Amino acid sequence: MGRRSKARIDRAPRGTRAGLPRPPGSSPPTIGVDLGGTKIATAVITEDGRVLASHRHPTETDASAQRVIAAIANCIETCLGDVAKSAGAVGIGVAGQVTPAGVLESAPNLPWGRLPLRSKIEQAVALPTIVVNDVRAATFGEWKFGAGRGESDVVCLFIGTGVGGGIVADGHLRNGATNTAGELGHITIQLDGRKCHCPNSGCLEAYVSGWAIGERAREIAATRPVAAARLLTIAGKPSAIRAETVTEAYRAGDALAQQILEKTVEYLAAGVVSIVNSFNPSVVILGGGVIEGLPSLIPPTEALVRQQALEVAVRDLRIVRAGLGPEAGVMGAAALARAKVARRGPR
Amino acid sequence: MGRRSKARIDRAPRGTRAGLPRPPGSSPPTIGVDLGGTKIATAVITEDGRVLASHRHPTETDASAQRVIAAIANCIETCLGDVAKSAGAVGIGVAGQVTPAGVLESAPNLPWGRLPLRSKIEQAVALPTIVVNDVRAATFGEWKFGAGRGESDVVCLFIGTGVGGGIVADGHLRNGATNTAGELGHITIQLDGRKCHCPNSGCLEAYVSGWAIGERAREIAATRPVAAARLLTIAGKPSAIRAETVTEAYRAGDALAQQILEKTVEYLAAGVVSIVNSFNPSVVILGGGVIEGLPSLIPPTEALVRQQALEVAVRDLRIVRAGLGPEAGVMGAAALARAKVARRGPR
Repeated sequence: MGRRSKARIDRAPRGTRAGLPRPPGSSPPTIGVDLGGTKIATAVITEDGRVLASHRHPTETDASAQRVIAAIANCIETCLGDVAKSAGAVGIGVAGQVTPAGVLESAPNLPWGRLPLRSKIEQAVALPTIVVNDVRAATFGEWKFGAGRGESDVVCLFIGTGVGGGIVADGHLRNGATNTAGELGHITIQLDGRKCHCPNSGCLEAYVSGWAIGERAREIAATRPVAAARLLTIAGKPSAIRAETVTEAYRAGDALAQQILEKTVEYLAAGVVSIVNSFNPSVVILGGGVIEGLPSLIPPTEALVRQQALEVAVRDLRIVRAGLGPEAGVMGAAALARAKVARRGPR
Repeated sequence: MGRRSKARIDRAPRGTRAGLPRPPGSSPPTIGVDLGGTKIATAVITEDGRVLASHRHPTETDASAQRVIAAIANCIETCLGDVAKSAGAVGIGVAGQVTPAGVLESAPNLPWGRLPLRSKIEQAVALPTIVVNDVRAATFGEWKFGAGRGESDVVCLFIGTGVGGGIVADGHLRNGATNTAGELGHITIQLDGRKCHCPNSGCLEAYVSGWAIGERAREIAATRPVAAARLLTIAGKPSAIRAETVTEAYRAGDALAQQILEKTVEYLAAGVVSIVNSFNPSVVILGGGVIEGLPSLIPPTEALVRQQALEVAVRDLRIVRAGLGPEAGVMGAAALARAKVARRGPR
């Protein structure tokens, strides 16, 4: 992604340009924002999930919080175009820990400390705003518009650089007692196992995340350089081996890369078995960069889960690939804004 | 427990004997039934959790389903006394897999196959009836009247012969897609670990349940008979070592028993960490026979969980002992009947 903003106006909204009344039963669109370490994605989304306009802007992680608030407001007020003026609310998904009141408490990849994001954005754009964790927003998006549509009990597991998750139970996104339900990357799959980036060892994330796959591959390359010849060739040097290196070697037919990914499937299945037996969802949605790069991990994972989980828990279970890709966050944030904010007309 | 029924009438209900109108705001009591492999426990419970009458009857596991239905009906209609006549509904918790329609599908410790328990009991006692899994009933009881009272996000983990669990999220008992949410004994804590009684290996139950503690102790006794001298003395022979043997030896200051239980705490903490990071409850309730026999396992488990789980997930967390003991099931079944069945007056 370049540093320039990219805007795309997909289609005009119904009945706003000419001041016509909205068709009966329709409600104003909402704006979704996905605030991550590299980009601010914004979009105007209708009740039924159509994208009326979308925009991407790089996150200036060296800028003050005030400048990033201004950048978000500018994306909403200018870059999204006139269709944003018909929106009734803003939903922001942010890669960090958020309180129920919309205060960003901590964000490992964003440079600010505690930030009252909801109130700052409400002041800046004069629209009711909600702020949630980006993975929960993406879960809501996959449930409302993606692979979990129409289901009551859905668990999303997003496997990217890290591993995050979200839970829909009995038709509601679950928050937990301190707004952090769904940290499924940090279920233990191996007591006293690999050190995680969290305080614990043996977490699912420490085996199947992008960083963990890279780390496991580097360890093997250090002890078995002959077997790892192709990984080393692709990466250039041992320390440059990443999950992407393993993926590339696997696609080229490399035996070690296949072994690493087969173990990854075993680890992933162990985590999904715990999820399935605990939550009893009808759908487990697997997404995130690792899965998008290697969707072929899904069928063998599903086969293992069906062998290992309780029969009654897998009887009606589907394990599927996420349907919205990187748009899940922005679409979910917009839909959550609709669901949570008292409906108001356009400004 | 003897084979004779034991009945106890605790107090007369308000306003039923003399035909007085019920005080404003009060609703009829409900009947809870806990149908297990050894006993049928029944009780008449008020809305606020008072036990008006209770009764225990041995389960005749060699009898036909028809005779057990008749025994339950007899407990309700005769043994509980006149107070049962004021009840508005019946809730049955049963140690097995139950469909949402109240059909018992399978029950490892009960001799019948598929049994439409709800409709059979409704026919027999002419009261609206609900049937649920006994562990979920006990979870509801602990939440309504026990250690989880007043909380919105509660997870119960019952560690007895096996390990079962139940989930209250956002103020509702969760069922999952096929009515089996909360099988927390079957979360993986050790990939390729100890064989479980389910199809999988490495489950929490395979480490901390009564059967698993006994099995682990017998394995140690087989390889280290000197260290296991006290276990062998208490049990009489290696094959007779049980979890109870370990408990007794631990209370007598035995070093090996202490080691076995310290490992049990590590295993239990690994499971609770997964639960806490996944569900983000405000309270984790530990109950069941193993915990009732060894409540001193709770503080060291809590200490480990606080070290290992995500900081935000343990910030407001309490880990507590179950409050209702073996009455949780019957009280929860009665409360679920109240919550689920449209309220009707007494017969």
